[in-house]
Amino acid sequence: MIEDLMKFVKVLLRGAGQVMFQGSAWAGAFFILGIIVGSALAGLPQVAIGAVLGLIVSTVTGYVLNMPHEEGESGLWGFNGILVGCAFPTFLGNTLLMWLVLILCAAMTTWMRVAMNNVMASWKVNSFTFPFVFSTWIFLICVHSFDGLWGEYMALPSLMNSFSPDLNVNITALPDYWLKNISQVFLIDSWLAGLLFLIGLYFSSKWAALWAAVASAVALGVAVLFKASGSDVAHGLYGFSAVLTGIALGCTFYRPSWRSAVWALIGIIVTVFVQGAMNALFMPFGVASLTAPFCVTTWLFLLPRLNIDNPNTDVRRPDHSHWHKRHAMP
Amino acid sequence: MIEDLMKFVKVLLRGAGQVMFQGSAWAGAFFILGIIVGSALAGLPQVAIGAVLGLIVSTVTGYVLNMPHEEGESGLWGFNGILVGCAFPTFLGNTLLMWLVLILCAAMTTWMRVAMNNVMASWKVNSFTFPFVFSTWIFLICVHSFDGLWGEYMALPSLMNSFSPDLNVNITALPDYWLKNISQVFLIDSWLAGLLFLIGLYFSSKWAALWAAVASAVALGVAVLFKASGSDVAHGLYGFSAVLTGIALGCTFYRPSWRSAVWALIGIIVTVFVQGAMNALFMPFGVASLTAPFCVTTWLFLLPRLNIDNPNTDVRRPDHSHWHKRHAMP
Amino acid sequence: MIEDLMKFVKVLLRGAGQVMFQGSAWAGAFFILGIIVGSALAGLPQVAIGAVLGLIVSTVTGYVLNMPHEEGESGLWGFNGILVGCAFPTFLGNTLLMWLVLILCAAMTTWMRVAMNNVMASWKVNSFTFPFVFSTWIFLICVHSFDGLWGEYMALPSLMNSFSPDLNVNITALPDYWLKNISQVFLIDSWLAGLLFLIGLYFSSKWAALWAAVASAVALGVAVLFKASGSDVAHGLYGFSAVLTGIALGCTFYRPSWRSAVWALIGIIVTVFVQGAMNALFMPFGVASLTAPFCVTTWLFLLPRLNIDNPNTDVRRPDHSHWHKRHAMP
Repeated sequence: MIEDLMKFVKVLLRGAGQVMFQGSAWAGAFFILGIIVGSALAGLPQVAIGAVLGLIVSTVTGYVLNMPHEEGESGLWGFNGILVGCAFPTFLGNTLLMWLVLILCAAMTTWMRVAMNNVMASWKVNSFTFPFVFSTWIFLICVHSFDGLWGEYMALPSLMNSFSPDLNVNITALPDYWLKNISQVFLIDSWLAGLLFLIGLYFSSKWAALWAAVASAVALGVAVLFKASGSDVAHGLYGFSAVLTGIALGCTFYRPSWRSAVWALIGIIVTVFVQGAMNALFMPFGVASLTAPFCVTTWLFLLPRLNIDNPNTDVRRPDHSHWHKRHAMP
Repeated sequence: MIEDLMKFVKVLLRGAGQVMFQGSAWAGAFFILGIIVGSALAGLPQVAIGAVLGLIVSTVTGYVLNMPHEEGESGLWGFNGILVGCAFPTFLGNTLLMWLVLILCAAMTTWMRVAMNNVMASWKVNSFTFPFVFSTWIFLICVHSFDGLWGEYMALPSLMNSFSPDLNVNITALPDYWLKNISQVFLIDSWLAGLLFLIGLYFSSKWAALWAAVASAVALGVAVLFKASGSDVAHGLYGFSAVLTGIALGCTFYRPSWRSAVWALIGIIVTVFVQGAMNALFMPFGVASLTAPFCVTTWLFLLPRLNIDNPNTDVRRPDHSHWHKRHAMP
Repeated sequence: MIEDLMKFVKVLLRGAGQVMFQGSAWAGAFFILGIIVGSALAGLPQVAIGAVLGLIVSTVTGYVLNMPHEEGESGLWGFNGILVGCAFPTFLGNTLLMWLVLILCAAMTTWMRVAMNNVMASWKVNSFTFPFVFSTWIFLICVHSFDGLWGEYMALPSLMNSFSPDLNVNITALPDYWLKNISQVFLIDSWLAGLLFLIGLYFSSKWAALWAAVASAVALGVAVLFKASGSDVAHGLYGFSAVLTGIALGCTFYRPSWRSAVWALIGIIVTVFVQGAMNALFMPFGVASLTAPFCVTTWLFLLPRLNIDNPNTDVRRPDHSHWHKRHAMP
């Protein structure tokens, strides 16, 4: 009984870890700790509660639907659900109906992941966090149709960006933005959470921690160079998707090498533009682009199925539909 | 000669029936009767004329392009065309150019269905009414580009929903809304038409009639609970897609059982949210979401290819790319 | 060395030619000449410079990524890149950052083409110019998010089309519009460039020149009949996608015949409506639809894989994933 519970908790923790491609319970534990710390500091404890609830609901849904256990127990049922759980209380008012749709949406992600992976199977890529993105969009946009859902923390639909004042680019502020780029992977706005996420990554994979750090810095540089909205940059909103792209391309789907590093760097830069485009694209609807920029960009870099890390071999085009191994740092 | 004509009429009637997955000429006859009654009561006889014209044009297109007859003669050429024929005079002003594009659009749906089914073949799902939806969107959005097309009954593009007064939820009104949820499958706003559609369904499949009735009631409940626009709910606009989802999941792609009933109920509920999201998403373009919420939701529930009605067998994942059998009620 | 350079120039010219499906260096030479003439006349030399730069960057990217040479050397690496190079200085202000993203975007199209063709492989269609369209949209929409990119020549986002005065339909003006429909394939607004493009087509394929001419005329007629914006029609904005559809359906993917001619004509007409719809759809974002109407419409006509030019044979459904042969005129 206690053993079963321990096993279930481990499955949950791995679910948290898989948000950043780490099937590691330790990484997941640090991620959840970061969410709790960040949401407590922001005075929004409902975000941490939602995260744990979404994680549990989506994981239990996998068992109820009797999906292949091996996959789910490496954390693949939970990573979309925990993000749903972070997103709903971050954007919606804290009402009973919000919790009802949070549970419905978290459960949905488990079979939407199978649905989307089925669609993408012949293309040899994975749906990543897109089940979370797509299902969360559905319910967030609904605030404009249903008075029963309240977009308390959502932007009003508008046609044009009102640019905020320029970014405060001084030495003391930059580390803050850099860590928030990482914390926003879980929609948390806290440098301390970002640091905890980085530590969690480090315990699971030094390469992943390195690429998260590099991706955050590069994305920050691109956003500053092209003069993105200062307040968006300061809150880490131009970095979280790039962080995921960096981990995906730099050390998850390709073995770390100089060639794959260049590929990942280009991917990180492109992610910032896809982010800028999606932010503008969703302005008339008042919803956030969530991690869609990461999904779209990483697909664009994996779908050609180039032998980036094996340029001289004649091996068949790589299959990117799953991620498994972590690459040890030498 | 007369025999050929009779056969052709039967093919047409089955085309009307397939809008609700019924390859039954009797069901189709009741559906067309409902359209005639509903459009006459609304003082819009052009809707019934358009419906019959669209049905004929799309069916004849299948013969002209020499597509596989077996498929077409079970009604699969006509069901998108009849919906095009209902939609154009419902949204556009009654001008000669409207009738020209109605004919063009109805013909297009016949090969767009083949195109979309080709795309979806490897995913093992069907395009449903999406050829109607996609081609109708093209021409409806054109009212903003072409002065020659007149969006007489279309909403003006806007950024925000102006919520209408709350719904009048009293005992006498509810059956009216409930039946309009069914009549709006053919874009008809009439409780009498809804009743005729329900009778047509009953003659073809008691399960389908039951699921249409249940889906309409559940969708009404969800829309009231989450406080959708009162006038939209009163005109059945939050129910028609859910009715189609109910018939699809409850008794067309899965055998009726307790497990598939729960699955269908969740699908019906999700359809209402997809409807709310799409209504908001299309506000800046002033077009209706048509039956897209049904298509999208039903895909999300079929694409995982779960053995919902055969949980204990080891049969391979079900193929949902066609619908054939109707399941007899015990 | 000189030989290598000559070969490289030929590959570049074929890249220009493939924008209109012509793997012919002569066609490409005329196309580039037309771009130079047109951009010089418009006082925008940066468009011609961008075109050549984009062509070179995307072609070199193919060599750097070591993609199959045979494909690239028939011009398939360059045709998206040259369009990126035409588009960026046409819409964006002439700044250093614009040139940086032009280079990045042109390079991207080379692997996006492989990515999209991989996705479409099982559907047996090609991605056409969609890599250009999709990647250019990303960077153009970014002007609303990044102060560092300046949409100098872009429309402001708006909800409703403000219809310009009616088109001046007199005999002397029509040939001007008709040739601009062709010049706008490369985003050039010049009857002389259109004439040069037509001559280039003629040298490569008389059928292609004929279909470009017919498509431009038919599209002009449809746009006038349905009263599209006068200024858009006068600048050729309702014809360029139709020209590409005409060449694709009329003589590239189907052998010229009476049956395929009817099919191509319907495709040309539908392209005008898809253009009208997309123009309206992108109004809230202030971006152009580029050649997306051509891509979408041609897909809709190729995806059913109908034996349009072989109605009486039992050959399997045609594979449209590549284009090769040009059909000689009798």
